[in-house]
Amino acid sequence: MSDLTMIRAAAERLKGHARVTPLLNSAFLDEIAGRRVFVKVEALQHTGSFKFRGAWSAVSALSEAERSKGILAFSSGNHAQGVAMAARSHGVPCVIIMPADAPRVKIENTRALGAEVVLYDRDTEDRDAIGARLTVERGMTLVKPFDEPLVIAGQGTCGLEIAAQAAELGVTPQEVLVCCGGGGLTSGIALALEAEMPGVTVRPVEPEFFDDVTRSLATGTIQRNARSSGSLCDAIITPQPGDITFPILQRLCGPGIVVPEDDCLRAMALAWDRLKVVLEPGGAIALAAALFHSEGTSDIVAVASGGNVDRDVFVNALERFG
Amino acid sequence: MSDLTMIRAAAERLKGHARVTPLLNSAFLDEIAGRRVFVKVEALQHTGSFKFRGAWSAVSALSEAERSKGILAFSSGNHAQGVAMAARSHGVPCVIIMPADAPRVKIENTRALGAEVVLYDRDTEDRDAIGARLTVERGMTLVKPFDEPLVIAGQGTCGLEIAAQAAELGVTPQEVLVCCGGGGLTSGIALALEAEMPGVTVRPVEPEFFDDVTRSLATGTIQRNARSSGSLCDAIITPQPGDITFPILQRLCGPGIVVPEDDCLRAMALAWDRLKVVLEPGGAIALAAALFHSEGTSDIVAVASGGNVDRDVFVNALERFG
Repeated sequence: MSDLTMIRAAAERLKGHARVTPLLNSAFLDEIAGRRVFVKVEALQHTGSFKFRGAWSAVSALSEAERSKGILAFSSGNHAQGVAMAARSHGVPCVIIMPADAPRVKIENTRALGAEVVLYDRDTEDRDAIGARLTVERGMTLVKPFDEPLVIAGQGTCGLEIAAQAAELGVTPQEVLVCCGGGGLTSGIALALEAEMPGVTVRPVEPEFFDDVTRSLATGTIQRNARSSGSLCDAIITPQPGDITFPILQRLCGPGIVVPEDDCLRAMALAWDRLKVVLEPGGAIALAAALFHSEGTSDIVAVASGGNVDRDVFVNALERFG
Repeated sequence: MSDLTMIRAAAERLKGHARVTPLLNSAFLDEIAGRRVFVKVEALQHTGSFKFRGAWSAVSALSEAERSKGILAFSSGNHAQGVAMAARSHGVPCVIIMPADAPRVKIENTRALGAEVVLYDRDTEDRDAIGARLTVERGMTLVKPFDEPLVIAGQGTCGLEIAAQAAELGVTPQEVLVCCGGGGLTSGIALALEAEMPGVTVRPVEPEFFDDVTRSLATGTIQRNARSSGSLCDAIITPQPGDITFPILQRLCGPGIVVPEDDCLRAMALAWDRLKVVLEPGGAIALAAALFHSEGTSDIVAVASGGNVDRDVFVNALERFG
C-alpha cells in the first residue's frame, strides 16, 4: 500500500536523477483567476512529463537481479518515454510495446531514448499476450502506468516538492488541482499532501466526456468512460480509475472538476505567454480549471503535468487563443 | 566598479525575489551538438527574461529616500518589464519612457505591471530630454539597461547560479555562451565565473549583421553596428558595447560567435520540443551557437536569456523548424 513512507523513500531514490520542477506564478494569470495561481511545471521534468518520477521510482526499487533482466511497459505516450529513460539511466534493457499505428515521432523518440520498441497490430494481436511472453521468456519486469504502489509513490514526490516550495514562498493554498487519468499522480500528490500540507484539498481535473473519476467520486463506485479516444487530452484518457488509486482518491480528494477542451488550449496559450512553458492539452487542464473553473479567492496550485504536444495542436492553440 | 563582492551582495538582495532558474539538458540536444549542452533558462525568470535580476539589483540598492521618489527607465522591451516589476514589488512609482510606435502589447504589459508609460514621438521628441525633466522635476532615479555596475552585478547572479548548478550536476563546462547586446549579462556572468568556475571561457554570441561586440573584441577597440534595427533578435540589438561592460568583456571573454537568424529560429523550435520552454530569437541565440556553431566535445553551457516573443514569430519558427 502506498503511503508517505514510500513516497519519502522514492524521493530519496529520485534525488539527483529527477528534476525539482519549478513552482511558477504570474500576476497576469492571477488577474484572470481572481486569485493567486501557482503552477507546478512538470512539463520541465525529464522526458517532458511527471511520468519520469514514477518510472524511476519503480525501476530503482528493483533488485539488481530483477532489474538486469530488463523493464517492460505498454504505452505510446509519456509513460513510455519516462520508463525508457529510467531504464537507460540504470543501464538495463527496456522494451516498450506500442500499437503499430502510434505516431511515428513517438516511436522514434522512445527508440532514441534507448528502448526496444515492439509494435503490435491493434486488430489482430493481443498486447497482453506479447507482454506475458516477454515476462516469461526474458524475465522482464512490467512497470504499470498508474495502478502500482511504487509508481504512485514516485508521482507523490511531486507533492512533497509542492509542499516545500509553497512553504518557501509563504503560500498556504486552499486547493491543489491535478490532471487525472488513471489517478497515479493525483493519488500520489494527495498522499504526500495529507501529511505535508494538512487542510489543503486535492481535486482531480478531467476533460469533458472523459470524467470517469469525477463521476466515480460522486457516486462512490468506479465508473467508466463511454468513449476511449477522441480527446486532445490524450495523455490523461483512461477507461476508469485504478483499483489501487480509486480508494486513495475517494479517501483524500475533493470533487472533480470537468473542463472543456477549448479551455485547455486557452490555458496552453496563456502558459506560453505568461510562464514561457510548453504544455500539452492534458498538461494544461489543471491550469485551465484554476483560471476558468475555480471558485473562491484564496491561493491555488495547479499541476501542469506534461508538455509533449504535436506542433499542429500547439500552433492551433496559439492561433486561436494566443 | 563591478566585482564579485557586488555580485554576491546583489544575490543577497535578490534572494526570495528573483527565481533560481533551472539548468536543463536533453539527450536529443546533446546528439545535435555532439557534446553535452546545459541550458540556463532565464526565460523562466520573472517577466520572462534575466532583466529582472539587474532591475531588482539596482532598485533594491537605492536608499529608501531615493527609491520613494521613483524609478525611471527607457525601454520598449525586456528591461522595461523587469524595471516595472521590480519597482512595483518595492511599492514605488515607476515611469517607463517608450516610443509611441512601440507594439501595443508591450505598452499594455508594462502598464499592467504598474508602470506609468510615457510615450514620445521618435521624430519630433527627444527622449533624453523627457528623462532629464522627470529626473529633475520628480527626483526619479534612472536605471540604465546595461552600463551600470548595479545592473551588471544583478545579471552576474545568473553566473553564480550556473556555477552552483553545474557543480551539483558534476559538470565542468569548457565554455559558457551568452547572448550579448550591450554586454550587461555577459560581463556579469564573466565576473561571477572568473571566481566561481576558473578555467571556463565565457563567449558572447551575437546575431549576424549586429556583431559589434565580436568585432570590438577582435580589434581591441569599440566598434559600432552599421544598422540599428531589422533583426528578429530585437532584444539584443544595441549600437555598441558599453563603456563599463567592454573592458570587462575584453579582460575575461573568449572570441564572439556570430549566428544567422534562421539558426535562432531552429533553436527556438528545439527548445520548444526538447526542453518545453519558450524562447525569443535573441534568447535562443546562445543555444543556437552551442548546437550549430561550437567546436569541441566537452560540456558547454548556453544561457537562454528570454522568452518574450510575438506569436507570429514563434509560430513561424515552429512551422519552419518544428
